[in-house]
Amino acid sequence: LASKLPKVGTTIFTRMSQLAVETGALNLSQGFPDFDSPAPLREAVARHIAAGHNQYAPMTGLPALRQQVAAKVLALYGCNADADSEVTIVPGATEAIFCAVQALIHPGDEAIVLDPCYDSYEPSVELAGGRCVHVPLALPDFSIDWQRLADAITPRTRLIFINSPHNPSGALISRDDLDRLAVLIRDRNIHLISDEVYEHLVFDGVRHASVLAHEELYQRAFVVSSFGKTYHVTGWKTGYVVAPPALSAELRKIHQYVTFCGVTPLQYALADFMIEHPEHIAELPGFYQSKRDLFCDLLRGSRFTFNRAAGTYFQLADYSAIRPDLDDVAMAEWLTREHGVAAIPVSVFYQDAPRDLRLVRFCFAKREETLRQAAEKLRAV
Amino acid sequence: LASKLPKVGTTIFTRMSQLAVETGALNLSQGFPDFDSPAPLREAVARHIAAGHNQYAPMTGLPALRQQVAAKVLALYGCNADADSEVTIVPGATEAIFCAVQALIHPGDEAIVLDPCYDSYEPSVELAGGRCVHVPLALPDFSIDWQRLADAITPRTRLIFINSPHNPSGALISRDDLDRLAVLIRDRNIHLISDEVYEHLVFDGVRHASVLAHEELYQRAFVVSSFGKTYHVTGWKTGYVVAPPALSAELRKIHQYVTFCGVTPLQYALADFMIEHPEHIAELPGFYQSKRDLFCDLLRGSRFTFNRAAGTYFQLADYSAIRPDLDDVAMAEWLTREHGVAAIPVSVFYQDAPRDLRLVRFCFAKREETLRQAAEKLRAV
Ligand SMILES: CSCCC(=O)C(=O)O
Ligand SMILES: CSCCC(=O)C(=O)O
Repeated sequence: LASKLPKVGTTIFTRMSQLAVETGALNLSQGFPDFDSPAPLREAVARHIAAGHNQYAPMTGLPALRQQVAAKVLALYGCNADADSEVTIVPGATEAIFCAVQALIHPGDEAIVLDPCYDSYEPSVELAGGRCVHVPLALPDFSIDWQRLADAITPRTRLIFINSPHNPSGALISRDDLDRLAVLIRDRNIHLISDEVYEHLVFDGVRHASVLAHEELYQRAFVVSSFGKTYHVTGWKTGYVVAPPALSAELRKIHQYVTFCGVTPLQYALADFMIEHPEHIAELPGFYQSKRDLFCDLLRGSRFTFNRAAGTYFQLADYSAIRPDLDDVAMAEWLTREHGVAAIPVSVFYQDAPRDLRLVRFCFAKREETLRQAAEKLRAV
Repeated sequence: LASKLPKVGTTIFTRMSQLAVETGALNLSQGFPDFDSPAPLREAVARHIAAGHNQYAPMTGLPALRQQVAAKVLALYGCNADADSEVTIVPGATEAIFCAVQALIHPGDEAIVLDPCYDSYEPSVELAGGRCVHVPLALPDFSIDWQRLADAITPRTRLIFINSPHNPSGALISRDDLDRLAVLIRDRNIHLISDEVYEHLVFDGVRHASVLAHEELYQRAFVVSSFGKTYHVTGWKTGYVVAPPALSAELRKIHQYVTFCGVTPLQYALADFMIEHPEHIAELPGFYQSKRDLFCDLLRGSRFTFNRAAGTYFQLADYSAIRPDLDDVAMAEWLTREHGVAAIPVSVFYQDAPRDLRLVRFCFAKREETLRQAAEKLRAV
């Protein structure tokens, strides 16, 4: 059997979470909360399972949940997406990205990814017979290098991935960036996948610049988000895609044969919770900003250097002053084994990482107690 | 945007279920139960969600559930599959089939499907850049036509799909068939996807001939099954694949980027239930056989003709004596609109259906009351 993905091993998220379990380290690697989702949301699942909502959901998702998503994107981004033809509920953002890529990429097509980026983008493109062109974000602030991006476009470019708030850096794309991107692709047959799974985790009073708020870009875009990130339930594997009708139709053709549909009782519960608890989303930036600030304030006493994350639940930290001799993969392992805190190396998000990169990523979606314990260990490094 | 699946529209399952809702017909079309899953299983989900099991599952699935699957296939089929390297939990059998196809099929490869077959096989192959070669099963009993199957094999054949118990016909593949298949592919580089999602729905005292019980075939096979069918929870979208370590490794590379993992609390609940209620599987053939027999006994008073399904929760019925003028798509619509019973036409499972096919499929995974009402309406046709 000739491998379709010969380069692929076990993802860093699986490896570091396993190492954390094996070593008993605090797991600040793979991105997931160590606290509970809201009780009414969990109770709603129990209620719908008891009520017998356990058979296939509609392929496109439960109408009530699609309507809640449509109402949300209208309220937050002024995007007048139709719940029936422009919103699709999917079993997780990863599936959405995979299906959108399959819908867009024909053999020989090129997709541009901005490194560092999430690890599923490139294999998705390769499985569709396409090729990824890697454009590094400019350091130290992970901003888009417009000249390099423009230079990377060829007649074969069919897709650009963007991701804001950005994993792993927490950097944000601005409305200005979106305008420049619109100009760049205006006369070309290029589409976008906009990975906005951390859309509600934006701090310091800044507003998330969603592609959904940009009429021109939206016409070319699959905008992907995640209930898992927003409602603290990454293990529920439920997300959504908003895209114009023609794009949604092509996405659904793929989704129909990749998974057919997501999990029914979870969709009911999420719809109920969105109706009954609109404050959850409004409170989320403050909720996570406190965690970021707690973690960063405590980390100031350490030899790590950093700028506070503008978004996401990830905090990068530079360890040049501690172990400049170690590359970041070795550093993440060393931190886990020797200091009891698991982290994610940043180089794994690159095709070709800068040789002098000395950054690890900590997930701060953790209880105050976990963050205090982790910071204490990190201060001892 | 050039469509990747230009021929694909909305699946027949979605269309007929929608038509059933619109017309208020009894829905015997799309395959799902209208009765509840066992109470302890539903309670287990509530318990695990309350206990905070709401974050990412391991990519390969919860170890406890993989162990239960390994124990089951050992007990039932004598297959000594290793829970770590040969069992993968997936978000539904459809995803498993998609990932197995992506792992096997390179551009230009051929896959053989035995028509009629489930509608996701061919698009999965096409999205991987392959081509399906269609070999019709022999009518009237939907048995394998060995000569035609042998003739369909070319040097490019990489994959044969088999499906037993067979959707839509309910026909079974025998141990003898598996032996012949083993001989046929022995000296060729051909793999199998064995869709056994109805493995526990086999009637009249017959034992399911699983590829897992066939050592030689298993070495080449992805064996796919579904908790949804077995535990009456099609909307939970949880299934599994058993395959030798090298094949499982390739499947997982794909699965890792298609969905990453399934839903955590459902996996916990299924593991608990399998441990605590082994009788569920043992009782399933009898449970569904009663439904088949009730439905068939009542249908004997009608002008439909049929042989009782040997497996699955589907019953085919020939309507030649009723409306020979209608093709089966028109017949299914007519039954839904005019007689209040939604069914699935069988021709949609074919690339090239016999012109004189006059078969519709009824799902008998229904409460006694539903089956009685449906049969009454069908007797009036
Ligand atoms: C699906 S595991 C990866 C979780 C995540 O998004 C991250 O840690 O970056
Ligand atoms: C995923 S909808 C199809 C359900 C099914 O397996 C069938 O009705 O054949």
